[in-house]
Order: sequence, then structure tokens, then C-alpha cells
Amino acid sequence: MKRTITELADGRQLIYFDERGGAVRDATDQRDLDERQHGSEIRFDPTREEWVAVASHRQTRTHLPPTDQCPLCPSRAGHLTEVPSADYEVVVFENRFPPFVSDPREMGEVPGGHALGARRAGLGRCEVICFTSAHEASFASLTPARARLVLDAWADRTADLSRLTGVEQVFCFENRGEEIGVTLHHPHGQIYAYPFVTPRTRQMLAAARRHQERTFGNLFAAVLEAEQHAAVRVVRRTEHWTAFVPAAARWPLEVHLYPHRQVPDLPALTEAERGDFSELYLDLLRRLDRLYYRPLPYIAAWHQAPVHADRDLAYLHLELFSIRRAAHKLKYLAGSESAMGVFINDVAPERVAAQLRDLEAGT
Amino acid sequence: MKRTITELADGRQLIYFDERGGAVRDATDQRDLDERQHGSEIRFDPTREEWVAVASHRQTRTHLPPTDQCPLCPSRAGHLTEVPSADYEVVVFENRFPPFVSDPREMGEVPGGHALGARRAGLGRCEVICFTSAHEASFASLTPARARLVLDAWADRTADLSRLTGVEQVFCFENRGEEIGVTLHHPHGQIYAYPFVTPRTRQMLAAARRHQERTFGNLFAAVLEAEQHAAVRVVRRTEHWTAFVPAAARWPLEVHLYPHRQVPDLPALTEAERGDFSELYLDLLRRLDRLYYRPLPYIAAWHQAPVHADRDLAYLHLELFSIRRAAHKLKYLAGSESAMGVFINDVAPERVAAQLRDLEAGT
Repeated sequence: MKRTITELADGRQLIYFDERGGAVRDATDQRDLDERQHGSEIRFDPTREEWVAVASHRQTRTHLPPTDQCPLCPSRAGHLTEVPSADYEVVVFENRFPPFVSDPREMGEVPGGHALGARRAGLGRCEVICFTSAHEASFASLTPARARLVLDAWADRTADLSRLTGVEQVFCFENRGEEIGVTLHHPHGQIYAYPFVTPRTRQMLAAARRHQERTFGNLFAAVLEAEQHAAVRVVRRTEHWTAFVPAAARWPLEVHLYPHRQVPDLPALTEAERGDFSELYLDLLRRLDRLYYRPLPYIAAWHQAPVHADRDLAYLHLELFSIRRAAHKLKYLAGSESAMGVFINDVAPERVAAQLRDLEAGT
Repeated sequence: MKRTITELADGRQLIYFDERGGAVRDATDQRDLDERQHGSEIRFDPTREEWVAVASHRQTRTHLPPTDQCPLCPSRAGHLTEVPSADYEVVVFENRFPPFVSDPREMGEVPGGHALGARRAGLGRCEVICFTSAHEASFASLTPARARLVLDAWADRTADLSRLTGVEQVFCFENRGEEIGVTLHHPHGQIYAYPFVTPRTRQMLAAARRHQERTFGNLFAAVLEAEQHAAVRVVRRTEHWTAFVPAAARWPLEVHLYPHRQVPDLPALTEAERGDFSELYLDLLRRLDRLYYRPLPYIAAWHQAPVHADRDLAYLHLELFSIRRAAHKLKYLAGSESAMGVFINDVAPERVAAQLRDLEAGT
């Protein structure tokens, strides 16, 4: 893998990842860009003890542009994009409309706090990762080598962003499909470096701590072992990974991918684990797209250990879920889910696992 | 208020609420209904320590029927509905496709549990509440007397359902608008009686307990006082209630309505507090519908104390929020919100409050 670090016209970083060492990435950004966006803020909700990001500058972000105006395609004469090069393999750049910003000097006034509901600058960093220059492609259509390059880029960004001052957790994820609000169709994901440990991760690590106190064992390893033993919800098991539908799945389609070895984050994966994952993940994504004979809207979320805490309790894994509950029906988060946190899943997890097992992956 | 308790053809309870004592509700359900739905189950997610409901029979529920087939309209010749009467004011009946069931004998096999991921029958009860017989109406279009009748019905159902064996929390809510997945347009809400304290309520009460240990005071009373003092996010304050946009709002449109007196649940509200709420809430709903000059999709959620625990810590209030972030844009819960619990709000709470203050309520 070759990594080339460059800069866009407004100072944002752009990094090319190439499969082979010979790639030359020396194009420069010819655009005359406005000043970088700023003004992000985090506010503490005392009734839930969680931080919320308020980023009102994002309201103006690019929304479903026509294909010939895609800002993630390579640049060409007459259409200069976020990627100056005429082609690329995998590229990562700082989000132009970030909920979190890396340089607190970019903030205007940093609001003061009070006892109830503290407010702080939204320190952090948000990056976009393009999986391919092919606008009409999808992650599922990547070659195994390209999927592996994406995984290496995620690991690289995790390691880099973990070193930034104030960053407490790095989150690599893909939102796919207009049904879940994706505003750009070009195959891409995002990487958020949060200035706090996220509520979901705090919750899972608290559960893992209680489990460890009771059993001396790791909670996630125990879940993996129980699912492997029960077998009925396992979609596929390879040498280094197991993909299963969790017993208490919240979503009508939900698959978790656990490595067989407890590691805190992506950089800790071995060569063999990375290769194995790429193959398994492509297989799974292709099955998912065949389930309803149409591209599945999904969120794929890497759960990594916090940067500075509880790294021994955490267990790297990917959680993929979809709001599609039938060929022509979506699952909406209504009152029970959104207000009370009680998920009602209309599809039995065992049935979903059986359906996914029975599907040929296709290509 | 007059309450008339009747039974539908399949044994489900149906209760009429009428403003005046003279109403006669003696129509009988003429339909030949299938057996009642059953098979609900709850599963414990050990990684989050939360229960999830799995209710696969719900996949067949009625989905956006044409107006002349609305199951919530009064019955007429040739169209028999869930409400046998030819007209009604407010009516409540047991949901035909409930995620939770009141009689565990209705369950088929109750699945066994194991150390990781316990499974139990989904004990509880789910009711539908119709706010008016007028199909094209909305809550915002109700008269103050009718809004008050709905509030009285919510209080009545809370008291009744709280007495059911196994019920730990009663949740009255309205999902409004196709954009958030409402499958029936007729103005209605739902009432869930859960067999556990919901994750959101557990979380809020844990925060309230920590606050009480630190200050001897009530967390929610402190939040209310802070918002009243800051004033900038208050939408309207009446004698007994204050409506404000919370400082750390998660949603682009979010308004909380707190009574000025700490009470655990709806039955504890006085006559004066009920009348005051009805007037304030109608005013707020009308402002919300005028914000974008179109009906606002929203979730309105009553936060009540658990039935058997922490009633001294809890503070009854209503949280209303919408996924609409601009006239033609919706907020979607994507990776950060759905996978990590980190909300990114693109709209400043202070701006929303000012907009709502400036609007005339209209009628």
C-alpha cells in the first residue's frame, strides 16, 4: 500500500491510498474555495448524561447532486471535485461540512458552560473515504484487493486520528442508500474522530465491565462463543471471522462480524485477519443485495475501543444493519424506539440468518 | 367524562370516552374476526443490557389503507371497523397487532433462556387511542374540550394499565405523519404497557439519582428552572406549564413541556393543570404546523414514572420532536446516531425557539 498525503485548496488534508507503490498523485486542487466551515459545538444533555453535537453550518451541505456534479468523482476538465486527480483507488479527505473540527482556533466564540448543560467547542475531525472512483459502483462490487485497501485505509486513519489531541474514539462507518438519508450516491464512507467516548460504546463497555467482574471473561468473546455454539443465527464462519445475526437484533436485517481473536481496533488486525475479512464481507454484502433483488440500504459501523480507556474490555467488531423489513417496506424508528429506546423487531433473527445462509452470494 | 367498556368480536377490550354523561355506546362488533394475534417475545441484549421485542406476527399488519377502508373510522353499513359505533368522541382499544400481549396464556411455547441473551414472553398490553372520529382531522384541530378528553383518557389508561400484573411502565405517545412510518392516517396515538422499565427511562432516572445525591434536588426541576431562567429557549410559559427547546436538543425540532409541579404521571395532574396543558399543547401544535406551512411529522412522547420504582425521582413531561429539518429536508438517523448514539443537530435550539415564539398559533 502506498499513501500520498496532499492538501486541498482550503487547507483540508487529502490522502490517496494505492494498492501498488508506483502510483503518482501530484495533481493540485485548482478550485477557488470558500473559507473552511466552522462553528461546531457540543452540548451536554444532563437528563441523559450524553453529549450532542450542534453544527448549524451543515444545513447548507451538498444534497443529492446530479451524477455529473458529484463532488466525489475524480476531477476532469470543466468539473473540479474534492479529488484533484484524474483517477484514484481509495482516497480520504477532511469533510467540508464536519460536525467536529480539528482546530479549536477555527471556532468563533467558545460558549461558556453552566452547571446544567455544559457547552464546549466540537473538537475532533471528520473524514470522507471514497471506496472507488467509479460513481456507479458499490462496496459489494469492489475486488477483494480493493476491499482490503479500504480496510487498510480505515486502519491507517484510526491510528492517525487516535494520535490527535482530544480525540477519544474513532468511528469508521458507511451509510448506504437514499432511504437512510445518504446525500451523495458515490460509494463512500465516513470516519469520525469524536472528542468523547460515544454513548453506545460507554454502554457496551459498562456491560462488559460487569460481565468481567462476574465471570473474569470478556463479554464479547462470550457472546461470540454462544452464537457459534447455538449456530442457528450464524450466517457464515471463516478461519478468522464469524458473521451472525444477534439473538436480540434490533433491526429487521442485522449482522455482526466478529474476529475470533479479541483485538481493540482495526490497526491490531493481522494480515491474515484482514484478508479473511475482505473476502467474507464482500460475500455478505452480495448476499444482502440479493435478498430483495435490489440494493440494500444499510449502515455498517465499526466498533473500536476508545483511544485512552477500557481497551482491554473492548472487542473490535462490525455491526451492519438495515431499515428494510420487506421488499417494499421500511422499518421506521417511531415512538417506542426513538423516545423510549425499546426496539420492536418484526422479523425473527433466526429466520433472517437462515435466509442469508441459503442465498448464493453471486458476484 | 363518561367511560363505557365494551368488547370486540375477538375478545379485545374497547373503551369509549365521552365528554358528557348521556352518551350511549351499545353497538356490537358484527365482524367475524380471526383469532387474536400472539407470539410476542422479549430478548435480552447482553451487550447493551436492554430488552428488545421480537414480534414477527406484526409483519402482516394493515399498511396505509385507502381512506374508505380506514379501520379507525366509525363503522357504517358495508364498512365494519375496529369501532362498532356509528360515531365516537375518543375511543381506546387493544391493538390487533401488539408487540406485547396481556395474557401469557396466549403465548405459544415460552422459549427458555440461557446465561447470555435471556428470552421471555412479551407480557404487556398495547392500546390504540383515536382522538376523533373525523378521519381528516389532526390533534392540532381538536377543540380544547376534546384535547382535554384525550388527556383524561391517557390518565385513565395509565392508571388502569399500571394495575396489570407484570407492567412496569406505561407510555402514551403519538406518531404523526407518513414520514415517520405511520401506517394509518386517522388521528390516533398509542399506549404501550411495557413489562420492563424502558432504557431511556432507566437512563434518565440514573442521571436523576446522581443529581439528587449531589444536590438533594430533582434533576428535572433543575433543568426546568435553568431553562426558565435562561429564557432564550422558552417557547411559551403558562400558569402551570413551560414549553421549551432543550439546550442539547437532538432533533432539528424538539420541544419539551414540563408542568411546574413535580408529579410522577398523568393521573396525578390536577384539573387546573390538565386544562392549562390542553390549551398550551394545541397552541404549540398549531405553531408547529405553520412553521413550514405543511403538517409536521412528529413523535409526541409522555415520560411517566415507572409503576413500581423511582417514582420520587421521576418528573412527568412531554417530549415532542420532529425529523423535519427544513421545508423539504428530513433528518435521518445515520451511522453516528443509530450506531453510536451521537446525535448531530444541524439546527441551533435557540433559533428554533425564537421561530416558534414568533409564530402566531393560528387555528
